[in-house]
Amino acid sequence: MNATETAAVAAPYVQSYVGGAWWSPADDASGTPVLDANTGEQIARSSTEGLDLAAVIDHARTVGRRVIQSMTFHERAFTLKQLALFLQERKETLYDVSRRTGATARDNLVDVDGGIGVLFTYGSKGRRELPNSTIIIDGDVESLSKDGTFLGEHVYTSMPGVAVQINAFNFPVWGMLEKFAPAFIAGVPSIVKPATPTGFVTEAAVRLIIESGILPDGALQLVSGSARGLLDHLDYRDAVAFTGSASTANALRAHVNVAEGGVRFTAEADSLNAAILGPDAVPGTPEFDAFVRSVVTETTAKAGQKCTAIRRTIVPSGLVQPVVDAVAERIAKRVVVGDAHDETTTMGPLASLEQLRDVGGAVDELLAAGARVAYRGALPDSLAARGAYMSPVVLTWDDNRAELLHSREAFGPVTSVVGYESLGDAVELAALGAGSLVATICTNDGNTARTLLTGIAGHHGRVLLLNRDDAKTSTGHGSPMPHLVHGGPGRAGGGEELGGIRAVHHYMQRSALQGSPDLLTQVTGVWHRGAPQRVAGEAAFGGSEEFVHPFRKALDTLRVGDAFASGLRQATLDEITAFAESTGDIFYAHVNDEAATANPFFPGIVAHGYLLVSWAAGLFVAPGRSPVLANYGLEKLRFTTPIGAGDSVRVVLTAKEIRSRVDADYGEVVWDAVLYNQHDELVATYDVLTLVAKDESQALG
Amino acid sequence: MNATETAAVAAPYVQSYVGGAWWSPADDASGTPVLDANTGEQIARSSTEGLDLAAVIDHARTVGRRVIQSMTFHERAFTLKQLALFLQERKETLYDVSRRTGATARDNLVDVDGGIGVLFTYGSKGRRELPNSTIIIDGDVESLSKDGTFLGEHVYTSMPGVAVQINAFNFPVWGMLEKFAPAFIAGVPSIVKPATPTGFVTEAAVRLIIESGILPDGALQLVSGSARGLLDHLDYRDAVAFTGSASTANALRAHVNVAEGGVRFTAEADSLNAAILGPDAVPGTPEFDAFVRSVVTETTAKAGQKCTAIRRTIVPSGLVQPVVDAVAERIAKRVVVGDAHDETTTMGPLASLEQLRDVGGAVDELLAAGARVAYRGALPDSLAARGAYMSPVVLTWDDNRAELLHSREAFGPVTSVVGYESLGDAVELAALGAGSLVATICTNDGNTARTLLTGIAGHHGRVLLLNRDDAKTSTGHGSPMPHLVHGGPGRAGGGEELGGIRAVHHYMQRSALQGSPDLLTQVTGVWHRGAPQRVAGEAAFGGSEEFVHPFRKALDTLRVGDAFASGLRQATLDEITAFAESTGDIFYAHVNDEAATANPFFPGIVAHGYLLVSWAAGLFVAPGRSPVLANYGLEKLRFTTPIGAGDSVRVVLTAKEIRSRVDADYGEVVWDAVLYNQHDELVATYDVLTLVAKDESQALG
Repeated sequence: MNATETAAVAAPYVQSYVGGAWWSPADDASGTPVLDANTGEQIARSSTEGLDLAAVIDHARTVGRRVIQSMTFHERAFTLKQLALFLQERKETLYDVSRRTGATARDNLVDVDGGIGVLFTYGSKGRRELPNSTIIIDGDVESLSKDGTFLGEHVYTSMPGVAVQINAFNFPVWGMLEKFAPAFIAGVPSIVKPATPTGFVTEAAVRLIIESGILPDGALQLVSGSARGLLDHLDYRDAVAFTGSASTANALRAHVNVAEGGVRFTAEADSLNAAILGPDAVPGTPEFDAFVRSVVTETTAKAGQKCTAIRRTIVPSGLVQPVVDAVAERIAKRVVVGDAHDETTTMGPLASLEQLRDVGGAVDELLAAGARVAYRGALPDSLAARGAYMSPVVLTWDDNRAELLHSREAFGPVTSVVGYESLGDAVELAALGAGSLVATICTNDGNTARTLLTGIAGHHGRVLLLNRDDAKTSTGHGSPMPHLVHGGPGRAGGGEELGGIRAVHHYMQRSALQGSPDLLTQVTGVWHRGAPQRVAGEAAFGGSEEFVHPFRKALDTLRVGDAFASGLRQATLDEITAFAESTGDIFYAHVNDEAATANPFFPGIVAHGYLLVSWAAGLFVAPGRSPVLANYGLEKLRFTTPIGAGDSVRVVLTAKEIRSRVDADYGEVVWDAVLYNQHDELVATYDVLTLVAKDESQALG
Repeated sequence: MNATETAAVAAPYVQSYVGGAWWSPADDASGTPVLDANTGEQIARSSTEGLDLAAVIDHARTVGRRVIQSMTFHERAFTLKQLALFLQERKETLYDVSRRTGATARDNLVDVDGGIGVLFTYGSKGRRELPNSTIIIDGDVESLSKDGTFLGEHVYTSMPGVAVQINAFNFPVWGMLEKFAPAFIAGVPSIVKPATPTGFVTEAAVRLIIESGILPDGALQLVSGSARGLLDHLDYRDAVAFTGSASTANALRAHVNVAEGGVRFTAEADSLNAAILGPDAVPGTPEFDAFVRSVVTETTAKAGQKCTAIRRTIVPSGLVQPVVDAVAERIAKRVVVGDAHDETTTMGPLASLEQLRDVGGAVDELLAAGARVAYRGALPDSLAARGAYMSPVVLTWDDNRAELLHSREAFGPVTSVVGYESLGDAVELAALGAGSLVATICTNDGNTARTLLTGIAGHHGRVLLLNRDDAKTSTGHGSPMPHLVHGGPGRAGGGEELGGIRAVHHYMQRSALQGSPDLLTQVTGVWHRGAPQRVAGEAAFGGSEEFVHPFRKALDTLRVGDAFASGLRQATLDEITAFAESTGDIFYAHVNDEAATANPFFPGIVAHGYLLVSWAAGLFVAPGRSPVLANYGLEKLRFTTPIGAGDSVRVVLTAKEIRSRVDADYGEVVWDAVLYNQHDELVATYDVLTLVAKDESQALG
């Protein structure tokens, strides 16, 4: 880049946003020129000369962390939702800027709308799937002592550092937001370093975000230009999430702070993704057509500059030519290469002339290694002379094990079609990619799908099963969804991003936590069985008049550990029989003493489990006015000791978890319910899920 | 070691177990001598000279993987249980061998019984918490299209390679089994490389395992001696789990196959673990006593050679001297240093003279850096002259921020006691360890516990809350439990082991899986809503006489997708009222029309959710003979549309997941239950959990 640096002096700088302010280098700094991909004209230059990277990290470590960590998961998620709504209104601005990178309208849907979609998904999942607090309990409580005084469980807490996110040039908006959103929910500030050729689009997005005033100071900083040296300031508290080439990933991984200092490092690198056509999906089937459509889309979207593009089209050996023909026909009919500003264009230029040279070089290498050009689209001379334009290329190979076929990626509109002899052969070919982000399996046959999936899943981060049922509704081979993990083993970088709350966990520390029920309750805010309760109700079972029935308390006064103990209710055979008759539940264990006795789990006729939980509800209800709005569900119901005629049941109900909503005047309360019999044996345990008003004045009844 | 190699020529070799046979080097190979820690006498020598490591890997890749992967999770887990029972009967053999490493009876409990305990835990969890198949579904299904034809979810499948496990000298049995068990459940063969000084104990354990004939060929290979070069044969399909020093971890991490080749690498390294005494835990409190006991135990167990030992005892500054005094008093009273074969010994020698030199050197460094010896136990001359004996040392520091205090570990019976001024100060001191395996927080005050925990959790893999409630029942600061993760960030290596099924996931690949309900069902074996059903029951709702009610089918004929559709049942106000009266559940929404109408979620009086699920049971029951043995629970019950008087409900029940047990004549069946109203709107959804006999002849009723 040195050669062009001097020519770039006059253009404006792509700015950085650091320490709460916009920043540019001195006007005489040496900058990298940034060009319009459609025309080759210079738009801007990029440089971080003179930027104090240590101060950037420090701002995140101090101001950023302090502010984000004072918020709960729900507050952070709600912030993301507001940000998504704000950007949604202004996305046209980003479309316009983004055209200059060669992105078509369709490409912008993926990058801009896709990025905003990530914010919406995390804005929603962060509130639906996480508690309204700052600690996530992971999995079940383990009892580590017989008497229940020593328990173990796992908690996620915020990683005590910062997140450095280094993005690729192809998705300047989505690339930033898909890493930022989960880090923000996790309570970790982000420092974003976009790729230079398209960083001006990221800058435009950050400009909107900062204008919105929605994010707290320090939550998001932008380093536009080289961030060499950024890793020098990181340690085991911090994370680096990288998207880009394997060689850059390896260089970063070799940094002493990563290799020895414990910086968490995750990489998402380009891979040679495969699409496999099942033997059943012959021409004429809906699967064959869907497969061809997908190959064309995933070869030409974003001019093939997608790390999830289909590079290896693996088909039954007898179908190589039919697939090549169908793909070629569809490209010829549907793909219009041109300036991204032109509405008729369906495939824009590559992102830069450098990219064009790289892809051309890769194609030459593939040809030298045995590939043949089965199809190459025409490119008008007017375009060829102008920007980074290239037409789609389909290659075929005599040797389906040729090394470069499975290892050399042309990061443009290029795919190879190769034949396989058997499903085992197809699995081997897919695995020769040595780890990929995604593969498509196109078949309508369950056995084929199962054989291929179990063979290739271990080599892939995502697998799409394509058939007639989902051909129309599929979100596509190439589109990472915020709900699903994105990343893959081996060549794909070995990392994992997105996947809903899974990515939030990546920015947190999972710790095992051991202690008494009381201290675990006080530390996590979630009541643990065995911890102290404030029990209203039946004195014989621990109830005290000192306490009010917890169903009479609104969220503003209810506390975990507030409980109610009922008296005993005896079961009679008449009631069991009447319940069987009125509900129709005449399973033999409730109506046929002989069969019930023969059953290995019952002593004779037993009460219906549904009758027991119904009685329990009758035992724990608080008649009259109550701020409880609804019982909207149950979780983890287990029946442990059967109840026969003459046995009795009682219930103890304890407020276990309280999740006040940030955007409603009620919240969820999870109640621990335990049914005992007259011998204090466990009869049933479950969680009762209720909605409770925030305020006593909302009580009804 | 060169100096002693020649002297070792005569002793027998510690053998390797590779390719299905025991292996020794040629008698004139150069070997490392292995000594008795108590006496210094040579026991054996260790060498892999001439061992074909590529063949070892290949045996695991081919034979090992093929056999393990033909088993289901339950079969693998059951195998581990059988192995645990076999070793349990023969553990005295291992105790005897292990004494020669300096391990006392108590140390053997941790190593030998602890290792067998890991097998029991995985033997149990693998059957209770995993399906009886080879694919684990992770989390919920995500609907990715409005019409439900395109779904996404996550699956874990076996990592397509081998697991190389490099263990530390301090736990030759537990160290092997805690890594082997989860890898085996995951379907991945293990190659175990123990540390040379105590590898003869591992060899003895493997000898028992092989004698048992319980493990399939290739599931476990043992490389006794140097395994230099082993990583040369690994790639992205494989995993290396290392326990040992940070320097070795860094060297392994720098291997090109790890740094660039995508080998999964996890390390558990020694860390400078802290125990923090809360300000409330003054002398005279149960917490103070428990704290002192724990510090002494965790400094002297295994002669302090535990990566989880307490190296930094962090106490209120005013309590430094009382803690030192109490610790010294307890050591003087309780700790008897001696030959591990002597029953009066409570602390054996270090594992080797080399260890003794290392620890002595570390203590000297700490003293030079400002530490003072506050207590040093006496060591009889007879011992000092003989083996690797050392008495416990307690250090104090004027400067509680001294760098070596927080970074230099003496891997022996040595702890430092330092003071803090405030809880924030205590958090900072703990964090100066730069990442640790475990910390104890000793307090009976909830606020103190919460402040310390939220401050230090991000720096720790495990935190133990110690107070009067769990002082007696706690499994201890130093003991990793198979249920809980073991590992920690930063200095502790950045890895994670154990934690129940979490460790099984470490040996699997998580892949996002997208497709139609039908193909997802066929691929995973679990029915997905929207996939084809074979519906018996009411013709108006899809039922056909062609199919039998699935409650009439035993496990041998039941298939996922077998379903039953009921007719509609209308709700009347009388029935709602009668249910309220008979159960006592008189929540206002069921009895008070005015209050119910005022409720934001209800149109007026509504039927009890418990009544609806009771009716559903009556609607889907199959009267008469049935192989269904019990309905033992419910999961994920959600009420979505209320049912008032005049509305009707119907239910569709579908066999979703079938888990035949390997060790009983029945299994679990999970049924998807969906309640609809007369407008086909969703009223409720849940999973019904049943036990079903394997065989029709077991039907009852």
